[in-house]
Amino acid sequence: AYLPAGADGLANPLGTAPGIMAEAAGKLIICMPGVPTEMECMFGESAAPRLKALAAGQVVVIGKVMCFGAGESTIADKLGRLMQRGRNPLINSTASAGVITLHIVAAAGRKADAEEMVERQRARLVEILGDLVYGCDGQSLAEVVGAALKERNKTLAVAESCTGGLLGKLVTDVPGAGDYFKCGWITYCNEAKIRELGIPAELIEEHGAVSEEVCLAMAQSARVKAGSDYAVGITGIAGPGGATEQKPVGLVYISLDCAEKSLCRKHIFSHSRQNVRLGSAMTALNMLRTEM
Amino acid sequence: AYLPAGADGLANPLGTAPGIMAEAAGKLIICMPGVPTEMECMFGESAAPRLKALAAGQVVVIGKVMCFGAGESTIADKLGRLMQRGRNPLINSTASAGVITLHIVAAAGRKADAEEMVERQRARLVEILGDLVYGCDGQSLAEVVGAALKERNKTLAVAESCTGGLLGKLVTDVPGAGDYFKCGWITYCNEAKIRELGIPAELIEEHGAVSEEVCLAMAQSARVKAGSDYAVGITGIAGPGGATEQKPVGLVYISLDCAEKSLCRKHIFSHSRQNVRLGSAMTALNMLRTEM
Repeated sequence: AYLPAGADGLANPLGTAPGIMAEAAGKLIICMPGVPTEMECMFGESAAPRLKALAAGQVVVIGKVMCFGAGESTIADKLGRLMQRGRNPLINSTASAGVITLHIVAAAGRKADAEEMVERQRARLVEILGDLVYGCDGQSLAEVVGAALKERNKTLAVAESCTGGLLGKLVTDVPGAGDYFKCGWITYCNEAKIRELGIPAELIEEHGAVSEEVCLAMAQSARVKAGSDYAVGITGIAGPGGATEQKPVGLVYISLDCAEKSLCRKHIFSHSRQNVRLGSAMTALNMLRTEM
Repeated sequence: AYLPAGADGLANPLGTAPGIMAEAAGKLIICMPGVPTEMECMFGESAAPRLKALAAGQVVVIGKVMCFGAGESTIADKLGRLMQRGRNPLINSTASAGVITLHIVAAAGRKADAEEMVERQRARLVEILGDLVYGCDGQSLAEVVGAALKERNKTLAVAESCTGGLLGKLVTDVPGAGDYFKCGWITYCNEAKIRELGIPAELIEEHGAVSEEVCLAMAQSARVKAGSDYAVGITGIAGPGGATEQKPVGLVYISLDCAEKSLCRKHIFSHSRQNVRLGSAMTALNMLRTEM
């Protein structure tokens, strides 16, 4: 690749496009490729060390608190003036797929001081938000649930209808998921619910495939068939089609079955098919986390 | 919400944060919320009409050609000087999850002329790239495969191991997938392969779960059990653990079974667990597309 005169190339271990670093007019200019994985790798290896050297004398430490189960504005209300701008540590939030990430940004002269500020603030946030907090520093719900299953030496199976494999996908995104995830059924059509999971055809006829009764039977059957400790069932209407007068798009039942209990919750998710499906799978993981 | 003096609020049908539109110093300034779905909706409803009015006298039409099966640089080599900068229509490319999107950007005084330029160029690209082109204008592989299945009145089932439900998820991302997708098995552990799909334990013992033999048996069994016209099987090592001396991380077998044939291909995907899994599921969809 051609480089501007006086610029240095930055190595790209994951692709062919190099980065560029140059100083001009007292500024440091860093260009990196747009592919996220390549950019992140290059940033860590080449850009961050140089930027750290520039920022000598002040340390910024960022800690993250991961939340699920309430919206961004509800969480902001609970935190009140802790989220005021200009504070140190500063707290701000981002939201993605129902996960609210609170970023604690602490600045101090010494790293240990900034870290202590982050940890003190983190403890305060957990105290206020309670069970809404599921983890820290970028952990996914599936990671936290997986770690809890592994720690307790428990196993999981899933039976999915409207999510079509998304819950299994999220669970197995985590390296080592084979330690606790046994298997899943994607019973998208009713015949598969009947044939593979042994759901009585009459149950579907009487209550519909999108019902508490069928959802509970899906989790119960999946647990027995898989021989797992926990099983989760999901059945709903992801849309845009499939709604009836009684059952709107976004209606999803999520069930959890284990030796101690068998429970099912009804949810209404809004917006797009994608949001209904992702919301359902994430809510199923959160149900497993809080009920386990 | 507070608005700057002289600015107009833009309605946000999907959330609470309004947008802002203002004119200052002869420039039009538009601020929109960062949540992608909210931004896209607001852009279409409020920003685009205003921008269109500003650009009267020149029309830019963009057409997209969707490709899968070769890297961005291979496609650029095939297209050669068609991708030179400064041409009209201009062709540039973006890459995501193995999909290469070619953007044909044509500018003309009249919309019909720009559209004709796009269509002429599109035909030329299809002529050069052949089977690498799977669709147009943002279509996903799963949409194209789904439409082909529906058109032929054929059905699909999947049997997934290392992808853990991701293939089923991609297939059912498409609204109306129930017309052709019957069901899937996420046989993550070997016992599930044996118990649910009837894979002989000896086959796994002899060849390993990650083998052509087991992969073919997964697709064949899934097709018979589901009573579907096509079935796809995936088994591999997504990593980072699980590699052996003979079987590296990234090794994935993908099989396709239908009445006419039964075939299996060996792939080695690189980089991360996520890339191995997504690459496997996308390649499975592409195999279905090209072999159907």
